[in-house]
Amino acid sequence: EIAEALVALAAERARADDAVNADRPLRGVSVLVTAGPTREPLDPVRYLGNRSSGRMGYALAEALCERGAQVVLVTGPSALPPPPAVAELVRVETALQMHAEVMRRSPACDIFVATAAVADYRPAAPAGQKIKKSADALTVHLVRNPDILAEVAALPRPPFTLGFAAETHDVETAARGKLRDKRLDMIAANHVGGTVGGFEHSENALLVIWNGGQREWPMMPKVELARALAMLLEERYAARQAASA
Amino acid sequence: EIAEALVALAAERARADDAVNADRPLRGVSVLVTAGPTREPLDPVRYLGNRSSGRMGYALAEALCERGAQVVLVTGPSALPPPPAVAELVRVETALQMHAEVMRRSPACDIFVATAAVADYRPAAPAGQKIKKSADALTVHLVRNPDILAEVAALPRPPFTLGFAAETHDVETAARGKLRDKRLDMIAANHVGGTVGGFEHSENALLVIWNGGQREWPMMPKVELARALAMLLEERYAARQAASA
Repeated sequence: EIAEALVALAAERARADDAVNADRPLRGVSVLVTAGPTREPLDPVRYLGNRSSGRMGYALAEALCERGAQVVLVTGPSALPPPPAVAELVRVETALQMHAEVMRRSPACDIFVATAAVADYRPAAPAGQKIKKSADALTVHLVRNPDILAEVAALPRPPFTLGFAAETHDVETAARGKLRDKRLDMIAANHVGGTVGGFEHSENALLVIWNGGQREWPMMPKVELARALAMLLEERYAARQAASA
Repeated sequence: EIAEALVALAAERARADDAVNADRPLRGVSVLVTAGPTREPLDPVRYLGNRSSGRMGYALAEALCERGAQVVLVTGPSALPPPPAVAELVRVETALQMHAEVMRRSPACDIFVATAAVADYRPAAPAGQKIKKSADALTVHLVRNPDILAEVAALPRPPFTLGFAAETHDVETAARGKLRDKRLDMIAANHVGGTVGGFEHSENALLVIWNGGQREWPMMPKVELARALAMLLEERYAARQAASA
């Protein structure tokens, strides 16, 4: 009877482990998340910035941790408290710094989630001293920053890549173009610059597109949206793993 | 005896009032304080900003409230909680908005304290839609913003004006020039863009200059510095009132 009891106990333990793993389905999966804006200095005090608060990226990093993932968060300047469960928090300021930190870590990650609003341009020649306001007008020359998301997706063995498209107009067209041109696995598109949702708001609506499917969520708190998106991300990641196995 | 007791009571009450007023020496004095950075939009999501956190202005507004002043705080975007004791809090984003709010209120104030890091320039033609990153390079044309501090100091009956000079080099020379050219009553100069003190730091060192005197404080917490500066401001304001009486 003792042997039978032990077998039953072992079976029960295995079912419990399965339940835990079912509950933490991204266990052992390493995810690199970028969040927040970047700041591109014009001089030691002035910079070119954008309205990303980091909220969506932080919420998504937290939701991925809840699902068991090992999350590294590379973040631009944000006033938010960092998600406590992330394995590593890397603070950067400029697009070039974010590029360096991401490229160093991306070959070792399974999933790359690019929520950061990386500045597309930076001042060509930042001044070492504060620019004096002597002139009535001033011309600032900007040059392109590297496209971090496209570079990661173009790696020889790229991670599963989820990009974000924040647009003021023609959101879906822009998102489909980005998914195709950058060869992403998935893209989450949202409308920004309006009076509700997007940058600087705690709510958002998302249209998520991948090759062969799409899902849309109406306006809801970013924390809830992040949980739903993390679940979808896990589903699509599993599907790609199964297809390539 | 009752009459005598009443007289004694009245005298005691008067002394108590004096003690309270001595403790709140700016009682009844209205102070307009500006704080934080301004943001100058390039398009609905991108802007030109600066590294002011609002910390010095918020601390100074609080210190002036502690001394009994009636404080109106006009602030650019800041992640800080607003000082609870201010009589009115006005949130703005751009230099033009700050200009409008300040010019409307400045004729009625006794003291004007300009800690805000108002952008000297704004994009000449902000785009209504998000600028696409199609070009390899981009040129942004900037035009001058109004000089709020100089305009207030040039009013027919200007308030007592305290300006701030945040400089990366030749701090004292720049501050003396600003005091003279803008006809300020007082200027507080500090070094920014370094590794300690100034923007984005909780500590600062100040050199305060007025016609006929100056005072210097070494690196210390901005909250303490704000209290010391509020006391000096009160002293110099009283001196100007006495001189013009």
